[in-house]
Amino acid sequence: MNSKDKNKPTLPGKASQSPIGIFDSGIGGLTVVKRLATTLPNENIIYFGDTARVPYGSKSNSTVIEYSIQNTKLLLGKNVKSVIVACNTASSIAIPELRKQFNIPIIGMIEPGAKMALQKTKNKKIGVIGTRATIGNLAYSSEIKKIDESISVIEKPCPLFVPLAEEGWTDHNATHKIAEEYLKELRDEGIDTLVLGCTHYPILSKIIQAVIGQNVSLIDSGVASSELIKEELQKLNLLTDSIEAGWQEFYVSDIQVKFKEVAELFLGKEIEHVHKVDLEELVQEHKS
Amino acid sequence: MNSKDKNKPTLPGKASQSPIGIFDSGIGGLTVVKRLATTLPNENIIYFGDTARVPYGSKSNSTVIEYSIQNTKLLLGKNVKSVIVACNTASSIAIPELRKQFNIPIIGMIEPGAKMALQKTKNKKIGVIGTRATIGNLAYSSEIKKIDESISVIEKPCPLFVPLAEEGWTDHNATHKIAEEYLKELRDEGIDTLVLGCTHYPILSKIIQAVIGQNVSLIDSGVASSELIKEELQKLNLLTDSIEAGWQEFYVSDIQVKFKEVAELFLGKEIEHVHKVDLEELVQEHKS
Repeated sequence: MNSKDKNKPTLPGKASQSPIGIFDSGIGGLTVVKRLATTLPNENIIYFGDTARVPYGSKSNSTVIEYSIQNTKLLLGKNVKSVIVACNTASSIAIPELRKQFNIPIIGMIEPGAKMALQKTKNKKIGVIGTRATIGNLAYSSEIKKIDESISVIEKPCPLFVPLAEEGWTDHNATHKIAEEYLKELRDEGIDTLVLGCTHYPILSKIIQAVIGQNVSLIDSGVASSELIKEELQKLNLLTDSIEAGWQEFYVSDIQVKFKEVAELFLGKEIEHVHKVDLEELVQEHKS
Repeated sequence: MNSKDKNKPTLPGKASQSPIGIFDSGIGGLTVVKRLATTLPNENIIYFGDTARVPYGSKSNSTVIEYSIQNTKLLLGKNVKSVIVACNTASSIAIPELRKQFNIPIIGMIEPGAKMALQKTKNKKIGVIGTRATIGNLAYSSEIKKIDESISVIEKPCPLFVPLAEEGWTDHNATHKIAEEYLKELRDEGIDTLVLGCTHYPILSKIIQAVIGQNVSLIDSGVASSELIKEELQKLNLLTDSIEAGWQEFYVSDIQVKFKEVAELFLGKEIEHVHKVDLEELVQEHKS
């Protein structure tokens, strides 16, 4: 597709009034919506969670790219002026292809998170926690080392943090014990900065901060990407001039048991309505 | 397909010497392989774990049926004489369609597990634990009540048990705390029988037994289904007459980080080789 496609305008008439699109493989990206709404409270936001095809971390690169293109097209069909890829897997794999195909600002999680960590660290020891897929791909460490080779990056997969966040066990004794187990190595290494390399993890930040120590800076990629998109849109003169609170719209490809409860925990407020996207149509649309 | 299909014979020449096929959406079914190898030590076993498309619990019924048909065809292509559906989701959704399409004994998890629980209970109070999808579908409770309406079934989703099993935290303090949280309601209700309604859970049976109490019978659907398939094959004169130890072959649609380690924990022994199945071919094969 190109920017002249009539059905999916990339930069329509009054682009600055258009919403910002965010997609994720599931619901973790709702923590990014929360951050974005704080950074840019007047912007409208459209969220798509590909809950029917979650997780992306176990899928091949070509599949993740294909799904990311479909998700971006879905958002462009709703007239967004930019896209945040609020999924660490899709960020590390699909962004070059998305930027090639779509003529709008596209921001991921890895680059902003890595940059913010580099700004924060003083002792040049950065920890990164994430899913097994993100850590296995060395997504953050290669991004950090690309910018500054002298940084020591210590990575640790924390697979239980996603289900703990989805259980809402943000203050549970078991979560504390598990965090102790996962983070002790990073604490022993004396990191001064810790990247939350998974959009679920901000839900557990209180416990993570308590266990890793108050002197360690936690990096929330949702905050980092929100600030970056603000800069980008400013440069392009694409920030809204509305002074009203922005609205938010939520789309998912599947609505699972307990969805609303978990989504509201992640978003930090009530969700009135969630639209279900037909997956068949999403795939067909992409082919046509 | 029908039983005359030349490429995928359902009951080939020397059927009793053919292997037994088992499929699951991932690796949980390896606990069933372990049970089956104990119950029928001379049988050869072919396992397929659809690790590229896990989990099935969040997918639509039609998708689960389609995948289950593909998986069964894959196993039939390897000449199996029967199929165990070692996935609770696929068991509860796809078995009627599989039995309609394929002319071999097909055994799931739900029916054998429910029947064994009914045989064990004395006070008619049965607990069922499983993933949110299995519990949400009331898979076990409707099967149990179909046989005996007077049974009281108390169900509880335990979403953290799958990642805890995959972490191998079979004896961890955090697992104990989480089991306490999940199982206290079932214990208070005074159940005398507890169905492990997820093939991952036998990995945690020691902790589950300790928390729920030694007087509660744990039902492992892997044991129940292995006994049922033994009966079925006996009736059909399809048990092997080999007196040698059976061999096992393992196929998956994706090999993730840490796969071997987790798989060997589940299987209870070393896996020499795992074959990767091409997902495109699997899907194409099904269409043709």
